Amino acid sequence: MTYCIAALLDTGLVFLSDSRTNAGIDRISTFRKMHVFEKPGERALVLMTSGNLAISQSTLKLLQDQISGPDGQPNIYNVSNQFDAAALVGEALREVHRRDATALREHGIEFNASFILGGQIVGEPPRLFSIYAAGNFIEATLDTPYFQIGESKYGRPIIDRVITRSSSLAEAVKCALISMDSTIRSNLSVGPPLDLACIRRDALKILLHRSITAEDEYFRMIRSGWSDSLRHAFHALPNPDLLSRDS
Amino acid sequence: MTYCIAALLDTGLVFLSDSRTNAGIDRISTFRKMHVFEKPGERALVLMTSGNLAISQSTLKLLQDQISGPDGQPNIYNVSNQFDAAALVGEALREVHRRDATALREHGIEFNASFILGGQIVGEPPRLFSIYAAGNFIEATLDTPYFQIGESKYGRPIIDRVITRSSSLAEAVKCALISMDSTIRSNLSVGPPLDLACIRRDALKILLHRSITAEDEYFRMIRSGWSDSLRHAFHALPNPDLLSRDS
Repeated sequence: MTYCIAALLDTGLVFLSDSRTNAGIDRISTFRKMHVFEKPGERALVLMTSGNLAISQSTLKLLQDQISGPDGQPNIYNVSNQFDAAALVGEALREVHRRDATALREHGIEFNASFILGGQIVGEPPRLFSIYAAGNFIEATLDTPYFQIGESKYGRPIIDRVITRSSSLAEAVKCALISMDSTIRSNLSVGPPLDLACIRRDALKILLHRSITAEDEYFRMIRSGWSDSLRHAFHALPNPDLLSRDS
Repeated sequence: MTYCIAALLDTGLVFLSDSRTNAGIDRISTFRKMHVFEKPGERALVLMTSGNLAISQSTLKLLQDQISGPDGQPNIYNVSNQFDAAALVGEALREVHRRDATALREHGIEFNASFILGGQIVGEPPRLFSIYAAGNFIEATLDTPYFQIGESKYGRPIIDRVITRSSSLAEAVKCALISMDSTIRSNLSVGPPLDLACIRRDALKILLHRSITAEDEYFRMIRSGWSDSLRHAFHALPNPDLLSRDS
């Protein structure tokens, strides 16, 4: 399983992914799900993948083949806008579908993959896309400051409550880590190390791209601090008097 | 969709269910998912249902037919222990499966239903069971103080963090309401009124069985209080210095 979240803010973008891949709980491996495409001063894009790892890797291979292919062929480093970049990813997914879907179906395996692509290309504002297995995609709007893929439900309540377009990059990083922590606690197949990336609006470069292990000091503080805060908040709320009234 | 949660504590049991049923978002109805079987001094049982409403209602009809059937026929009011009560529910589900599953399959509809049954029968401790669509079931153990059915993920992180066997009934009610609130906020197809039931250990009667509307004073306080607490806790945790360090 996988959990990835990306937030689109007034001041830029934040991306966080876990790195655990499993095929049954006795086969857990670490594979990076975050891929960065950067040409400083011109574009900074981050792609996160979830679903069947063979499908994600094949899709990435096609995107990389385009980059090293003949000059003039559209690729993620030369398209002029992010809609076209998302369309390239979607078309690569469709190519993998044409090649693999029948064989997968014969083995009872669903064609399962979804991607998040976000960042900024010079001449455009920062943008964020969620790309489905069918190769179609949607873009984050003013009302939708974030996208999640993979095991998204455990970690969603805190995001719904605190993330808005006006959140700072630092707040969004903190919220994404709390959301990831809730997911890790409830689903064994999501786990560290995490990959974190941030892009500041109009910087046209990756501000930060780093791996966060389970031993990371800030992540450990967030994990224990958030647990303590929740328990404290829980006990601070009054208990119901329903019981005394009706018993 | 549905969300139901039940907790088995040292001091008794708590049950909470929503009441929304949907078949597409333009067809949302209110149906109770909580059913109480009580003979004071002898048994107090609560059954909660999720999944296809036609399946749940047919299963309940079979259980009710047994109750009003010939004397001596096993039914949920005369079985001597809760394992047998859970087996009655499972067998009723299998009967509905025999009758309906083929027709459902022809319409591409999955045979989807899962139940929670808990309470106490004289001579036994309080017990809690989770019953699957196949009619098989599991029982809560010392390590597993709660079961959920339906849309369970949004509301799980808070339960994992605060509910233990030694939680009080009042704490469990508070936690179940917070868990329900997180689910309602994230999934439109889960909603009030809620049904709440509590059983105190060895009382052999229903301590409390009441409906909680969106206007309920305590539930409204919990909803706003919990939101405020989460936002306060979020802002009280320090922001990462990752950004200043790497920028």
